Amino acid sequence: MSEEENVIYIGRKPVMSYVLAVITYFNMPNAKEVVLKARGRAITTAVDVAEITRRRFMDKAKISNIEIGTEELPEEGGRTRAVSTMEITLSLEG
Amino acid sequence: MSEEENVIYIGRKPVMSYVLAVITYFNMPNAKEVVLKARGRAITTAVDVAEITRRRFMDKAKISNIEIGTEELPEEGGRTRAVSTMEITLSLEG
Repeated sequence: MSEEENVIYIGRKPVMSYVLAVITYFNMPNAKEVVLKARGRAITTAVDVAEITRRRFMDKAKISNIEIGTEELPEEGGRTRAVSTMEITLSLEG
Repeated sequence: MSEEENVIYIGRKPVMSYVLAVITYFNMPNAKEVVLKARGRAITTAVDVAEITRRRFMDKAKISNIEIGTEELPEEGGRTRAVSTMEITLSLEG
């Protein structure tokens, strides 16, 4: 399994479609950890996905790490725009 | 200093007004730690505040803790609505 296979990029889809992606991933054999990546406005959605997954669907999924950062996105005219990013790692217990 | 004095609640004001509040707080004598609290859509703003503060204004401010959770807000008819929450702790180094 490559390192990137367990990453779910959070964007503008409905929250539940990402929750379903997390649950589907965790139901694969040997799946232990999934990383939600988001930037800008999608950060709130990433938090919703993590919270809904662990509270409503998967008792065993715990938040094992949260990181925030900044990404410089290129804009017209060669300038860049700073956008906040977030990574939430969900891990299966036991 | 009471425990709650170092909490900044993030809402709908412009990001820079919260950044200014953090910088002002850290310039008080003995200030070592500030907690940004946000829920719902304001979570993205809280991340922006933490990132802009540490990257642009205060090299010594580090993110020492991030927590996410869920709050049940009462609604009409006695029901509740779940809202995601976030707390980011910024600490001064050295």
